[in-house]
Amino acid sequence: MRVGIYTYGNLGRGVEYAALKSSDTELAAIFTRRCPEAVVSPYGTEVYSTDSVLDFKDKIDVMIVCGGSSEDLPKMSPQLLNDFNIVDSFDTHIKAEAHFNDCDRVARESGHVAVLSAGWDPGIFSLARLYSNSFFEKGRVYTLWGPGISQGHSDAVRRIKGVKDARQYTIPRKDARALIKDDKFKRLAACDLHKRVCYVSAESASDKKKIEKEIRSMPGYFKNYETEVSFTEHEELLKYHTKISHAGSVISKFQSGKDDENMNCAELTLKLDSNPEFTGAVLLAYARAAFKISKRGHSGAKTVFDIAPNDLSPLCDSEIRRRFL
Amino acid sequence: MRVGIYTYGNLGRGVEYAALKSSDTELAAIFTRRCPEAVVSPYGTEVYSTDSVLDFKDKIDVMIVCGGSSEDLPKMSPQLLNDFNIVDSFDTHIKAEAHFNDCDRVARESGHVAVLSAGWDPGIFSLARLYSNSFFEKGRVYTLWGPGISQGHSDAVRRIKGVKDARQYTIPRKDARALIKDDKFKRLAACDLHKRVCYVSAESASDKKKIEKEIRSMPGYFKNYETEVSFTEHEELLKYHTKISHAGSVISKFQSGKDDENMNCAELTLKLDSNPEFTGAVLLAYARAAFKISKRGHSGAKTVFDIAPNDLSPLCDSEIRRRFL
Repeated sequence: MRVGIYTYGNLGRGVEYAALKSSDTELAAIFTRRCPEAVVSPYGTEVYSTDSVLDFKDKIDVMIVCGGSSEDLPKMSPQLLNDFNIVDSFDTHIKAEAHFNDCDRVARESGHVAVLSAGWDPGIFSLARLYSNSFFEKGRVYTLWGPGISQGHSDAVRRIKGVKDARQYTIPRKDARALIKDDKFKRLAACDLHKRVCYVSAESASDKKKIEKEIRSMPGYFKNYETEVSFTEHEELLKYHTKISHAGSVISKFQSGKDDENMNCAELTLKLDSNPEFTGAVLLAYARAAFKISKRGHSGAKTVFDIAPNDLSPLCDSEIRRRFL
Repeated sequence: MRVGIYTYGNLGRGVEYAALKSSDTELAAIFTRRCPEAVVSPYGTEVYSTDSVLDFKDKIDVMIVCGGSSEDLPKMSPQLLNDFNIVDSFDTHIKAEAHFNDCDRVARESGHVAVLSAGWDPGIFSLARLYSNSFFEKGRVYTLWGPGISQGHSDAVRRIKGVKDARQYTIPRKDARALIKDDKFKRLAACDLHKRVCYVSAESASDKKKIEKEIRSMPGYFKNYETEVSFTEHEELLKYHTKISHAGSVISKFQSGKDDENMNCAELTLKLDSNPEFTGAVLLAYARAAFKISKRGHSGAKTVFDIAPNDLSPLCDSEIRRRFL
């Protein structure tokens, strides 16, 4: 499988790492919006300009699109689908269906496969939620995120006018697990279980009150959440907020038995020293699936829900059964 | 979806519970090897003799086969596949490939679908192992089982000549998590991480030494494990060893980064008050998948690895994306 990486930030480098470690993958090219001569890969991979992407049309089986969800992916993913199979990590939950439909239309017309919204959440955690609900429709499923920097939320803050740079920490509230344990009387939403802490460096001439207001009211990201916003110098931000770790849990509770007397619990927990390297590894595995599905002659948009687990693996089916069943 | 339950013990009752709670399932019939008049369902479902199963050929979309793995399923599953789509929970890891091939042959000839070895392990835990390996081929994945009674292992002991009844507890060794945390220098096998404790009531004329030896040497079940065997009166066994709870974890460790400096961990933990009710719910979801796959005109044997997560759900794709992505 020959993959390309489209735009080259933290996530792009995470995919690069995963591709170089993979047993069945050739990293065909990395594309940057910056001047390629100024971009150096820590692994020594050559970097090209996004302007030259069509020169690679026949040299790349799947393009892994590593832009941000707020501004980049809604344009990049449908655009690239005209010429490539793609995988992306689109993570704005409320806009995911529109993005899916945009990509599905282009993918069907051009005969390509798109796997959208892959990563850890949406992605692995989405799977945990669906599996749980499929086994016990009446069960209750909660997701806890953090402590950790959310790339998507940081990105969303960064794109506000007057913001130079930003980091957003998602943190489970101290009482989150207690609330989940005793959830009989209240329906718990994500905003009941988390708070969001933003560190922002603003352009010197900017209106900080306006920026803060814009953050707090951003639908799908901060609205309805307990949100803290702190302004800080850019050097401080770079020095003290470089952590790329993240963590989270999907907690499912299912009662069973004639009198609902049995409680069954499932919990999936991720503790990631490197969020972009983990997400990069997930994107690469779904790129493998996109390539397999494309080779079978299918096209259109997919999510992690549509993809059989064995399509993620470089191993053959009997070897998968032998090693993992 | 109309399902049947074939043989009616703990697991059969677990499936029955799940079917009655499901939004899209009709429980068409339960079949017992015992005299049907003597068998009472706690939910009031009518029970038929296994001899009459072919009368239900056109009334059942998927038969959920609830026999034991040692003696029942290797015969029952291929036999039933002549006339039905089936799901089973075959759990003898070392014989799983032979069972798969036996069922695949019959299923392809008769045009039916079989989903084999579904449950929590093999099943959900198998999925956790495959997903982990697909993301990080070089990662390390460990499974801890227990504390809890293993139905498969208890069943295997029960089938030894001279054994009246038995319970087998699988228990993680006290040092298991410490061994996993510090796994750099030793490759850990399941037998390094667990012990197996058997409580056996023997027939009065039986040779206990011979039974114990037969347990300890059983390949795929007890061989190479620290195994304790205690003989006990049958009444004691029924009184003190009725627990149907179980637990377990799949723990995955992946290093990443230029100098492998980042450690990423995933852990899936199940804590089940009712092992058979949880397994029953999993089997029912895979029955739903078998039915969908069959309606698409496919046939043959499948495992959990071959089945896209959305096929497990009673919901449509856009609803799945809206609720779980």
